Amino acid sequence: MTGLIPTGAPHAAELSDAQLERRLQARRKWLGDAAFEYDLPLEPVRGDGVYLFDGAGHRYLDMHSNAPSMGHGHPEVVSAIAAQAATLNTHSGHLSNTVEAYAARLLGLFPAPLRNLVMTCSGSEANDLALRVARMVTGRKGVIVTSRACHGSTAATAEISPGLRQPVPAHVRTIPAPDPRLAGKAELSSWFAARVREEADMLQKTGAGLAALILDSVFSFEGVFTDPPGFLAQAVEAARGAGGMFIADEVQAGFGRTGAMWGFSRHGVVPDMVTLGKPMGNGYPVGGVVMQADHLARLNASAPYFSGCGGSPVAAAAATAVLDVIEREHLLRNAGRSGDALRKGLRRLAKSSPRIGDVRGAGLCFGVDLAVPGSGAPDPEAARGVVNALRRNFVLAGRAAPRGHTLLLRPPLSISTEQAEQFLEVFGRVLGMLG
Amino acid sequence: MTGLIPTGAPHAAELSDAQLERRLQARRKWLGDAAFEYDLPLEPVRGDGVYLFDGAGHRYLDMHSNAPSMGHGHPEVVSAIAAQAATLNTHSGHLSNTVEAYAARLLGLFPAPLRNLVMTCSGSEANDLALRVARMVTGRKGVIVTSRACHGSTAATAEISPGLRQPVPAHVRTIPAPDPRLAGKAELSSWFAARVREEADMLQKTGAGLAALILDSVFSFEGVFTDPPGFLAQAVEAARGAGGMFIADEVQAGFGRTGAMWGFSRHGVVPDMVTLGKPMGNGYPVGGVVMQADHLARLNASAPYFSGCGGSPVAAAAATAVLDVIEREHLLRNAGRSGDALRKGLRRLAKSSPRIGDVRGAGLCFGVDLAVPGSGAPDPEAARGVVNALRRNFVLAGRAAPRGHTLLLRPPLSISTEQAEQFLEVFGRVLGMLG
Repeated sequence: MTGLIPTGAPHAAELSDAQLERRLQARRKWLGDAAFEYDLPLEPVRGDGVYLFDGAGHRYLDMHSNAPSMGHGHPEVVSAIAAQAATLNTHSGHLSNTVEAYAARLLGLFPAPLRNLVMTCSGSEANDLALRVARMVTGRKGVIVTSRACHGSTAATAEISPGLRQPVPAHVRTIPAPDPRLAGKAELSSWFAARVREEADMLQKTGAGLAALILDSVFSFEGVFTDPPGFLAQAVEAARGAGGMFIADEVQAGFGRTGAMWGFSRHGVVPDMVTLGKPMGNGYPVGGVVMQADHLARLNASAPYFSGCGGSPVAAAAATAVLDVIEREHLLRNAGRSGDALRKGLRRLAKSSPRIGDVRGAGLCFGVDLAVPGSGAPDPEAARGVVNALRRNFVLAGRAAPRGHTLLLRPPLSISTEQAEQFLEVFGRVLGMLG
Repeated sequence: MTGLIPTGAPHAAELSDAQLERRLQARRKWLGDAAFEYDLPLEPVRGDGVYLFDGAGHRYLDMHSNAPSMGHGHPEVVSAIAAQAATLNTHSGHLSNTVEAYAARLLGLFPAPLRNLVMTCSGSEANDLALRVARMVTGRKGVIVTSRACHGSTAATAEISPGLRQPVPAHVRTIPAPDPRLAGKAELSSWFAARVREEADMLQKTGAGLAALILDSVFSFEGVFTDPPGFLAQAVEAARGAGGMFIADEVQAGFGRTGAMWGFSRHGVVPDMVTLGKPMGNGYPVGGVVMQADHLARLNASAPYFSGCGGSPVAAAAATAVLDVIEREHLLRNAGRSGDALRKGLRRLAKSSPRIGDVRGAGLCFGVDLAVPGSGAPDPEAARGVVNALRRNFVLAGRAAPRGHTLLLRPPLSISTEQAEQFLEVFGRVLGMLG
C-alpha cells in the first residue's frame, strides 16, 4: 500500500510541504476524498470541547463541526458509549430497556402526533427512510427541495441533493432558498409558499405528483436562513394543499443548534416527519425518523425496517447522554446567550467592514456573506480567503451558499461568550487583512 | 409516553407474562419493531464473548448474532472505541492518520485491482453506494439478485431485497439460490451461470441492461450455500459477459465468517466491488465499499461521497481493533477448527434424526434444514419450534431460507470446540423432544 501511512507515522503538522503533498496525493488516490476543508489540510489529533489540536500542539477554535454539538470528546458521552459497549451491544431484534427509555424520552420532546421513532445509523439513512415512507403513504414520487440542499449520500437522498453538484431527476423540483432579499421580509412567507405551489403544479402536470417538501430547517447549505420566524408555515400548508408531506430535516438544526431543541419549532409548524442525524450521538453514528403511528404502521405492513446497528443499545446510550448533557449544561440557554454575543459582534464587524454583506442566523448557526466592497456583490474568493486565513490563525470555519460566498459558523453549543469574543477578534483581524 | 419504560425499570426476565405482554405492545406501538426473534422475546442485559445474559442472570449461548463476530463486548474493541472517542472524533474533511492507516491495512487484505476504500456508516449504505457506482459506470440500471436476498434498508437496497417480502421493480431480476439439489453438485456452477444469463437477457430485452450481479457470498438469507467451492466463478463470468459488474456483499461473510477472510475467495473470483458491514466494527456502525481506482475516480468526478460519521477516526479505531483481534486470536484458524467440530456434530445429528434434512456451510456459518420425517419436505414449523425451544434452553439461533425451514447458525468466531459441543448437546435434546 505504497503511499499510505503506517500507524504512528508523523502527523500532518510535522511534515515538510513536500511530504505533506505526497501524503495528500496518496490519500486522494486510495481514499478518494474529494475535498478538504482548507487549502492547507488540517490533521487534528485531539479534541476537547470547542477546541481541536494538531500534532504540533496548536489549538484550533472549532466554529464549524456540526456533529460534536456538545463539544469534542464530551466525557459524559464518551463514558456512556464506553460503558454500554463494554456491557452490551445488540441489534433491534431483542428487547432493550436502554433503547425503549431513550425513545420515550426523545419522543416526549416532539409535539403530537409525532409519537413514533425508527432509529438508523445516519442522517442519510433517516432521510432515505422518510422519503420512502412519504412515497409509500402518498403514492407519489415528486419531491421539492431548495436549490443547493444536501440531504444525504444514499442513492435516493443524493437524488434530492442538488448541492452535490449533480443534475437532479425530473421528479425532483428545486426552489430558491428563502432569502428575504429576493422577496422582502414581509412577503417572504407567501413568496416562498408560491414557489412551492408552482413546483407542486409542475409535478402534478408531469404525473409524478408531490410526495414531500423536504427542508433543512435552517437552510445551512444555502447560507443559513432563519428569519423572520414563522416564514415556513405557508410553504408547509402549500405542500399539504398539494397532497404532499412536510419533512423537517433536523440533521443540521436539531438538538439545540438554534437555541431551541428543533429548528422547525421556530416556524410554529408541526412536520409530518422529522429526520435526525449527526448531533444526535455527538459523533456516534446514529440517526432517526420521528413519525406518526399510522405512517409507521404502513411501513411495517409493507417492508419492516431493520437496521443492524441503528437501534442498538450503544447508539441509544450515546444519544441519551447527549440529552443529559443538553439539560445539565443548559446548552439551549447557552446557545442563546453565546449566540447573542456572536450576533452582536458579527453585526458590529459588518458595520465597520465593507467586506461583510449580511449576517443571518439563530442560536449558534450563522451565515456571514462576504461581499465586494461598494457593489455588495457576492465574493466567493474573499470567503475562500477568509476561511483559509482563519485556519492559519487557528480558527476553523466553513463555507456555504450557492456561490460559496457565505461563511458557515456552527460551533459546539457549549461555546462561552469569551470564546465567541475570541473568534470575533481573530475574524476582525482577518477581515482587516483583506483591506 | 405511557407504556414506554423508564430507565432502571425491570428487565423483561423479571416481568410477569401480563407485564411483558404490555411492554411488548407498547414497544411495537412506539418503536414499531416488526418482529422479534423468538415467541418469548429476549432482553439481554450483558454480553461477554459467545454469551448473552438476561436480567434474571440466565446465560445464553449466542449462535446467531453476526455483528459481534469477535465476541460480545470484546475488551480490545471496546477500549479502542473508548480511547479514540475520548481523544478525537471528526469527519472525513480532515486528515487522519488513524483512518489512513486502517485503509492501508484493510486494502492489503484484498486482491488487485481492489485498491480503494470508501467508508460508510452501515452495510446498507455500502451496498447503496456500490449499486450507485455500478449504475454510473455501466450506464445501466438492471440488477440480478437471489430470490430471498436482503442487501439493505435504504430505498435503493430495499429494492434489491426480495427477502423483505415486498415486490421488486421490473429492473430487478431474481434467480434461485445456488442449491445443489436443484442442479446436481457437478452441474451447479453452469446451472447457476445459466440463470444469470437468462435474467441478463431479459434485462437486455426490456432496455434496462445489466448493471450488477450482487450476491451475499454465503447466501445466508437463502439458507447458506457454500459448496462446492468455486461454483460462483461461471456466474461472475456470465454477469461480466453481459456487461455487468459483480458485487460481493460481504456484510455476512466478511471478516472471517467462513474461515477465510472473505467469502468470495472460496470461489476463486475477484469481485468488481466488495461491500462490508456489520462485523467490520464488531457492532460499531461502520461499513465500506472496496473498489477499483477508475471507479472511485468516476464517483468523485460526478458527486463526491461524503459521510459525516463514515470515515471517522472512531470507526477506523474500532475496525483496526477488529483486524488486530482476528490476527492475535487466530480467529480464522479457530473458525476452521470449531467450524469442523460443529459440522461433524451436525452431520452426526443429521444421521440420527429424521428431522434434519441437510447440513451446509463453511467456517462458522451453517444452514441446517428441518424436514418432515419420511418425505423430507421442508418443515418451517419444526424450525420455528426448534428455534423457540433452543431459546428456552438458553441457546440463540436464527432462521432463514424462503420458507424459514433452515436454522441459521453464525456464532462469534471465538467459539471454542467445547462451546460448539455444548450447542450440539442442547440441539440434540431439542431434536429429541420433537420426536
